[in-house]
Amino acid sequence: MILSALLTSVGINLGLCFLFFALYSILRNQPGNITVYSPLLFNERKAQQQDEFNLERLLPSPGWVKRAWQPSEDELLSITGLDAVVFMRMFIFWLWIHFCAAYVFTGVVCYLLYCEYNYISLKRIAYFYSSKRQPHQFTILVRGIPAPSGSSFSQTVENFFIEYHPSTYLSHTVVRRTSKIQSLINDAEKLYRKLGNLKASNSQQRFMRDGFLGLFGRKVDIADHYEKKLQDIEDNVRLERSSLAGEEVPAAFVSFKSRFGSAIALHIQQGINPTEWVTERAPEPKDVYWPFFSESFMKRWIFKIVVVVAYIALTILFLIPVVVVQGLTHLDQLETWLPFLKGLLSLTFVGDLVTGYLPSLILHLFLSVVPPIMIFFSSMQGYISHSQIEKSACTKLLWFTVWNIFFANVLSGSALYLVNVFLEPKKIPSVLAEAVPAQASFFIAYVVTSGWTSLSSELFRLFPLLCSFMKRLFVGKDDDDDFEVPQMPYHSEIPRVLFFEILGVTYFFLAPLILPFLLVYYCLGYIIYRNQFLNVYAPKYETGGKFWPIVHNSTIFSLVLMHIVAIGIFGLKKLPLASSLTIPLPVLTLIFNEYCRKRFRPIFKAYPTECLIKKDREDQNDPTMTEFLEKLATAYQDPALMPVQYSRSADGRSSPLLRAVEV
Amino acid sequence: MILSALLTSVGINLGLCFLFFALYSILRNQPGNITVYSPLLFNERKAQQQDEFNLERLLPSPGWVKRAWQPSEDELLSITGLDAVVFMRMFIFWLWIHFCAAYVFTGVVCYLLYCEYNYISLKRIAYFYSSKRQPHQFTILVRGIPAPSGSSFSQTVENFFIEYHPSTYLSHTVVRRTSKIQSLINDAEKLYRKLGNLKASNSQQRFMRDGFLGLFGRKVDIADHYEKKLQDIEDNVRLERSSLAGEEVPAAFVSFKSRFGSAIALHIQQGINPTEWVTERAPEPKDVYWPFFSESFMKRWIFKIVVVVAYIALTILFLIPVVVVQGLTHLDQLETWLPFLKGLLSLTFVGDLVTGYLPSLILHLFLSVVPPIMIFFSSMQGYISHSQIEKSACTKLLWFTVWNIFFANVLSGSALYLVNVFLEPKKIPSVLAEAVPAQASFFIAYVVTSGWTSLSSELFRLFPLLCSFMKRLFVGKDDDDDFEVPQMPYHSEIPRVLFFEILGVTYFFLAPLILPFLLVYYCLGYIIYRNQFLNVYAPKYETGGKFWPIVHNSTIFSLVLMHIVAIGIFGLKKLPLASSLTIPLPVLTLIFNEYCRKRFRPIFKAYPTECLIKKDREDQNDPTMTEFLEKLATAYQDPALMPVQYSRSADGRSSPLLRAVEV
Repeated sequence: MILSALLTSVGINLGLCFLFFALYSILRNQPGNITVYSPLLFNERKAQQQDEFNLERLLPSPGWVKRAWQPSEDELLSITGLDAVVFMRMFIFWLWIHFCAAYVFTGVVCYLLYCEYNYISLKRIAYFYSSKRQPHQFTILVRGIPAPSGSSFSQTVENFFIEYHPSTYLSHTVVRRTSKIQSLINDAEKLYRKLGNLKASNSQQRFMRDGFLGLFGRKVDIADHYEKKLQDIEDNVRLERSSLAGEEVPAAFVSFKSRFGSAIALHIQQGINPTEWVTERAPEPKDVYWPFFSESFMKRWIFKIVVVVAYIALTILFLIPVVVVQGLTHLDQLETWLPFLKGLLSLTFVGDLVTGYLPSLILHLFLSVVPPIMIFFSSMQGYISHSQIEKSACTKLLWFTVWNIFFANVLSGSALYLVNVFLEPKKIPSVLAEAVPAQASFFIAYVVTSGWTSLSSELFRLFPLLCSFMKRLFVGKDDDDDFEVPQMPYHSEIPRVLFFEILGVTYFFLAPLILPFLLVYYCLGYIIYRNQFLNVYAPKYETGGKFWPIVHNSTIFSLVLMHIVAIGIFGLKKLPLASSLTIPLPVLTLIFNEYCRKRFRPIFKAYPTECLIKKDREDQNDPTMTEFLEKLATAYQDPALMPVQYSRSADGRSSPLLRAVEV
Repeated sequence: MILSALLTSVGINLGLCFLFFALYSILRNQPGNITVYSPLLFNERKAQQQDEFNLERLLPSPGWVKRAWQPSEDELLSITGLDAVVFMRMFIFWLWIHFCAAYVFTGVVCYLLYCEYNYISLKRIAYFYSSKRQPHQFTILVRGIPAPSGSSFSQTVENFFIEYHPSTYLSHTVVRRTSKIQSLINDAEKLYRKLGNLKASNSQQRFMRDGFLGLFGRKVDIADHYEKKLQDIEDNVRLERSSLAGEEVPAAFVSFKSRFGSAIALHIQQGINPTEWVTERAPEPKDVYWPFFSESFMKRWIFKIVVVVAYIALTILFLIPVVVVQGLTHLDQLETWLPFLKGLLSLTFVGDLVTGYLPSLILHLFLSVVPPIMIFFSSMQGYISHSQIEKSACTKLLWFTVWNIFFANVLSGSALYLVNVFLEPKKIPSVLAEAVPAQASFFIAYVVTSGWTSLSSELFRLFPLLCSFMKRLFVGKDDDDDFEVPQMPYHSEIPRVLFFEILGVTYFFLAPLILPFLLVYYCLGYIIYRNQFLNVYAPKYETGGKFWPIVHNSTIFSLVLMHIVAIGIFGLKKLPLASSLTIPLPVLTLIFNEYCRKRFRPIFKAYPTECLIKKDREDQNDPTMTEFLEKLATAYQDPALMPVQYSRSADGRSSPLLRAVEV
């Protein structure tokens, strides 16, 4: 690929970016788009909606940049939670790496990493101190409850905890298998919505809809028909529930009277058999992932192995599209394979397009399929909360990206060749040193396509905009009940940002040309995500910055990768002394990493006694505590087991289900 | 090496073994040797000593075999503790491997491993239930106490635990730096012993000794001189102690009112900074290793890295003697290097001796230097108890042996060559498959020399016998106060036994000729160590079978090693299908190992709530509990800080220091 191809790619993407920015600043001023661009605002100001029209609304304005920049970090924290702040700090921090790394490098990177880790762990403690009483702080999840002889699981749990934690045990909720009920409820919910729409709309629409749904059926009042169906489903739900009372799963949420009490049960092995009474921190009630609740130790363990195998298979099979993409950057090879394209490819622009823009676009499209697969893998592993699933998918996706985008492109060979390279560790530095610099231009193009464009399309929110547009076109109006503020897709965004960081550190001294592109990416990203956090995404659950260790580890990985490439390059350039002198650097970096792991990691895993007891003491004199503990006993109810009543309340404004979820 | 060389080696060692056995069965009947062969008996029957002479005492008899066989496992447990039982079971178990492995192999080995792990973990729990109240069950060690502002460490510890563990905290003992005092006390003890001997002996000896010590000094009553010196030292000790009051170390033993209370403080991170208030299980008071008490997190961490580097350096440097030994087995090479030996080596017997017996003897001698070095390394790492140091040294020694004896001999190349082999994992199977079978005869010789002879010399106790003999010759009588029942040197014995097991599993289908030799070794070992546990060794401290995971891991390692060799051999023999079909075997073995680690490992790390609370409940109604808790407060006193008074009590039978240690 030559410079012109690179420039074509940059040009196309710059154009796209400006288009998106311009459209964004116009569209966001349209009140109809408020659910797309400022759902947070929408939720707050639902009441005081106004629909004036003025000319300003049609002018592109950079005002959102100012508004996204202004709030301080603490304000951001209060609005969007610590996860968002941690995510934002990723941008500042890399920014800093690319400013400083040019001068002092690994030392500075490590120093910054240390400071950041320290800063975020202090923030995490401060966040805990300032947090309100929350059910998950008082609760643990117990899995692998041994099969009871004669009594129910519920009785077994109660006996066990009354026996061994008499002073702190409060209550428990045994988990039940509810997938059937859940699907019935989902059906009911859909029907309920349709019914609601139907009642709100006029009779003409009702007739239209009738014809639309059952062209050859006899004409009945569709609203009555729906209501009858709804009642049937509700009866089914009730029936299922009563028959299901015995279908307990050997897992339970156990609540304690104090945070320290739950920490005691969490940290100390409970039963003699370590695969029974397995304790785990409970997630926030709304964060619980009910559908796939695998409870026994063996089951989870086997699923984990299955997932690891499937993950490896996917990672290796994914090399096929990557190799195809690689073919595109080598035009000459493509021409020999597909001779009929010769004429077309000889046009300069087409050639540049194919080598410069197409490969990274195709890669980008293929990659967009992967995050849902990773989420599926992680949910199979038996994690009990959305946040854990996201975190696990995030790690999976990161290494998937590194392997498939970085190594596969750099080494540009078959899967077997790749695996072979990694089976001979001695050769790795020299192979990488030859291959990595050769792919610099591809990665610059990748930064521009995948980075810049994805950032601007993130701002533009193309897909939600289309959805919203279609809905308004067909349904006629936005369905307010249906509307939910979106959650930041951390699992797909973090690996992308981190991958650029790995590129930046690795190419730092091989092809510094990549740095300005990355710099633009980080600056853009900083301001765009700030804007999105303030206007678009709402935190559904809060992990307290648990994503940070992933960031830390990937930075260390990229540093070591850079060192290995450096060793290889010094070796290739016949500077064995320099090569040998570089060897201690990765060793020292890994030792530094080990130190950080010991120094900070425990804070991200659990809160220490000091914090727990202090928070508990605060509660002791609080009169609202009894009320909270009463609520706590029912906090971990499966939403499928909560009371539903659609048929009677069909004309109420908000559905009981939505209310139940918000408890 | 040819068959005759092997036979020579077997012959020599058989001879040595029979000699040792014969001598043992005669010498053990001599009352004078009771401290060497049955110190346990000696301690018990000190009072009822009798010195009759009869002819039977001079006849070799196999009666000890019967006596070593008779006691059941439970009796052995009651006499020598669980560690001894675990050690004994190693012998039965391998025995079993070699019986069964011939038929069903890996599956059976894994099944047996699982059963053994299960059995031992159940034993461990049962041991805990049946154990008496012991101070270390109620105590934790806290290191990294943050520097106090204004107050002492002792005050800081008290404040912290009263604040955060008000209901369970009992007392604490801050550790002090006492190496100076300890050396003074040692001096005093030596003097005290001399004085005791002097007083007990007649005046002629007193005169002799005087001349012996200071040939040109003026003649004084040596007893008075010693007593004065002793008083000086005692004054010094008192002075040091008073000046040392401030020299506290930021570490303390903290005792709690219940076992569960100490478990809570142990398992939950205490301070916000994970490198402060680092908690750790306290060892038994007499197991504490006082001299090298490194207290801060950073210091221990740096020492650990230093030890790792030193360990690697030693392991690699040790290849030099190994290579020399290797040279001996290749006579032709030796002859080219040292041509003047040609004449000597051409004698068949000398040649056989050099190739058959000498190499493993030299190796054996070199190896005997290593255990003390490993103990030194482990003590540098900052472990606080003798048992932890032993366990760590045991692991170090095992991998040292595997690397230096197995790999270095098998691959018989320079250190660099060895490292190179392991940097190309793809080649490992084929390289091993070529080299491992070639060295079978060397390892058979090694089993015979190192295994058989070390077992019989273990029974014969050559070194202690010589010591005892010399002492009697020069001092005239055994010094009873000086006498201590020896402790089983697990750290050097376990790696040796395990190494033979690794050899057995690895050579199982390459050179089954090694199996009968190993079988003899295990049968011998079983009966000899049973004898030694019953008669010689006393358990000084008890880890509750914590050595077992090392045994388990090394068996898994040897299985995987065998699989790799098998893969290589099938590859060499052009059976790629068989080779590929073997690949899942090590993977499955490792998965099995992972399962065992999850299923059993936690039991070896800590006792679960269920056990702790049950034991605590038992104590609640026990009237002796208050008395125990009072004693607990002073259980972890540094022996150097206990009252000593030699000068006055110099004519008493037992020294106050020895009494103090036994508290």
